[in-house]
Amino acid sequence: MIHSTAIISAKAKIGENVSIGAFSIIHENVVIGDNTIIESYCELGVSNHLSEGINLIIGSESHIRSRSTFYEGSKFGDKLVTGHSVTVREKTTAGKNFQLGTLSDVQGHCEIGDYVRTHSNVHIGQHSKIGNFVWLFPYVVLTNDPHPPSNVMQGVIISDYAVIATMSVVLPGAVISEGCLIGAHSSVSGRTEPDMIYSGNPAKKIATTSKLKLKDGSRKPAYPWRKHFKRGYPENVVAMWVKEDI
Amino acid sequence: MIHSTAIISAKAKIGENVSIGAFSIIHENVVIGDNTIIESYCELGVSNHLSEGINLIIGSESHIRSRSTFYEGSKFGDKLVTGHSVTVREKTTAGKNFQLGTLSDVQGHCEIGDYVRTHSNVHIGQHSKIGNFVWLFPYVVLTNDPHPPSNVMQGVIISDYAVIATMSVVLPGAVISEGCLIGAHSSVSGRTEPDMIYSGNPAKKIATTSKLKLKDGSRKPAYPWRKHFKRGYPENVVAMWVKEDI
Amino acid sequence: MIHSTAIISAKAKIGENVSIGAFSIIHENVVIGDNTIIESYCELGVSNHLSEGINLIIGSESHIRSRSTFYEGSKFGDKLVTGHSVTVREKTTAGKNFQLGTLSDVQGHCEIGDYVRTHSNVHIGQHSKIGNFVWLFPYVVLTNDPHPPSNVMQGVIISDYAVIATMSVVLPGAVISEGCLIGAHSSVSGRTEPDMIYSGNPAKKIATTSKLKLKDGSRKPAYPWRKHFKRGYPENVVAMWVKEDI
Repeated sequence: MIHSTAIISAKAKIGENVSIGAFSIIHENVVIGDNTIIESYCELGVSNHLSEGINLIIGSESHIRSRSTFYEGSKFGDKLVTGHSVTVREKTTAGKNFQLGTLSDVQGHCEIGDYVRTHSNVHIGQHSKIGNFVWLFPYVVLTNDPHPPSNVMQGVIISDYAVIATMSVVLPGAVISEGCLIGAHSSVSGRTEPDMIYSGNPAKKIATTSKLKLKDGSRKPAYPWRKHFKRGYPENVVAMWVKEDI
Repeated sequence: MIHSTAIISAKAKIGENVSIGAFSIIHENVVIGDNTIIESYCELGVSNHLSEGINLIIGSESHIRSRSTFYEGSKFGDKLVTGHSVTVREKTTAGKNFQLGTLSDVQGHCEIGDYVRTHSNVHIGQHSKIGNFVWLFPYVVLTNDPHPPSNVMQGVIISDYAVIATMSVVLPGAVISEGCLIGAHSSVSGRTEPDMIYSGNPAKKIATTSKLKLKDGSRKPAYPWRKHFKRGYPENVVAMWVKEDI
Repeated sequence: MIHSTAIISAKAKIGENVSIGAFSIIHENVVIGDNTIIESYCELGVSNHLSEGINLIIGSESHIRSRSTFYEGSKFGDKLVTGHSVTVREKTTAGKNFQLGTLSDVQGHCEIGDYVRTHSNVHIGQHSKIGNFVWLFPYVVLTNDPHPPSNVMQGVIISDYAVIATMSVVLPGAVISEGCLIGAHSSVSGRTEPDMIYSGNPAKKIATTSKLKLKDGSRKPAYPWRKHFKRGYPENVVAMWVKEDI
């Protein structure tokens, strides 16, 4: 299961039934859970002056696609899934089932909850805090510096079930409240109200998310999205959503 | 012509005079036409649960630059040219002379015509339909989900000779008509009229494209662009354009 | 210091104490200064019909992170630092201490001064001219074609100490004057006045940069940024800034 061209440190802790693809490199301070797939050209456990030799921990049943780069000193729960060519720096933690899209770039020192999903080319700036069940769509950027360049760091907060659509910028210190939808190509700052749509540059409050109807002929509400979209979530999560009175 | 470090499946069908660079991987369900160049670190024929073991077909006289990833189950006409680090998923078809820029990401299940060109970092969402002679400039994103996340898929349609400038988002279900120009940093939805300029966020109709003059001193119209820009198109296409009475 | 899997042309000129990582490729027309680190999967000295066999020159004490691609025919001063997966085409020159962020793409034929820094995913179009101490933040795009596609090339000019914030587009032929701040998600054209803030799509003049106060409790001006931000600049530069009466 480990390709003959892969370069694996004897000090790395590789679980049972782990597959490692051609030309991949696993450095010493890496711990990989059981039943995980690491594709080709991946490099795990890159060190720098900030990573301090702390282990990179990848949970069980994960799938890291080709050309991905992970630094030491970050920790991921089980069932991490990445696209191709992701970069993840040091001292980030993510919960269960984090899905990180192709070409996405996590800058380090972030806290990410359970079941967070990003699409391609998402940039998560340092010190971002992301709740559970959050969605970030292509080319979303989470920023942190209110007057760049400076030493002031105002990471953003994205709350549970929030959705940020394509090519939106979350400005430094913004707090996106639970269940919000940020429309495509928006710039959002400040603290949003829960379950509201914000859109534009600068983003303005448009309406409650419940105004949006599903374009599948049903005319049911499109939000909260967990009432109709359950693909890829585990049974216990879906059961919890079904029981919710929202 | 095939580097000694490349890993080539014995089942792959490699044409005459094909060059394959260092550290590249060619999987089994891959068919590569004659006189094609595959640079270093490319991986062709990646499989997933959607690709179903269908062949990846790369036409003759193609040039795939380094670090590119292609899945099984897609098909490209002759003279495919890519930049570096492109990702192309399953079940996409493209015609002749498709040029895909560095870091571009084709998500699969797309139909792309002849002589389409993208610049760097273009994201082509699932179920996009792109005509012939279309241009997509850097950081353009073609989307598909009208109320993300959902199971509703409204791929966009981009018609012949349309041009979408830098960092524009084509919103779900949009139809960009023949010869349109979408200005930089726009968000466009709905159906545009042919040969018109749309710009802004949200994009509005500005004028007919013929109002734009070439900034080369000639004061000739800048559109239709095929009246003055012919670089890299084959003689028979250029001859067709010269004969057109537009 | 040179990994056994690296492929190094015997004609490349490698300085003293250079480190080259696993699976990297160094072609023949490459000159690397002393004490430089080239990480894994890098390819240096790619040739094309425009590079004409001219040397790629990398200054001393540089650090090129993994998966980076450099063409022949470009020249970098000492202390070049890149993120991962950068692409740099032919005939670009950069001065001392150029820092190019992860996934950034320099299209070639650019002139870049000393101490320029880009963050991730910056796209520097052909024929851009960038002064000294410039900052480009994530997803900034510098364009050049006023009516794409065409053969007219109007590269942008970015003057000393200018700052362009996240996801802004600098339109063809724009001249960003010294000390300007372009706000996030802006589209800027024409010639800006020095030390002013421009923001929006299209960008408008907002105020002088000195109106922005540091959000660190001090209420000091945030600009010129060199009055408070000195991280990573050498002592002689910082000493020059301290003496300046601005």
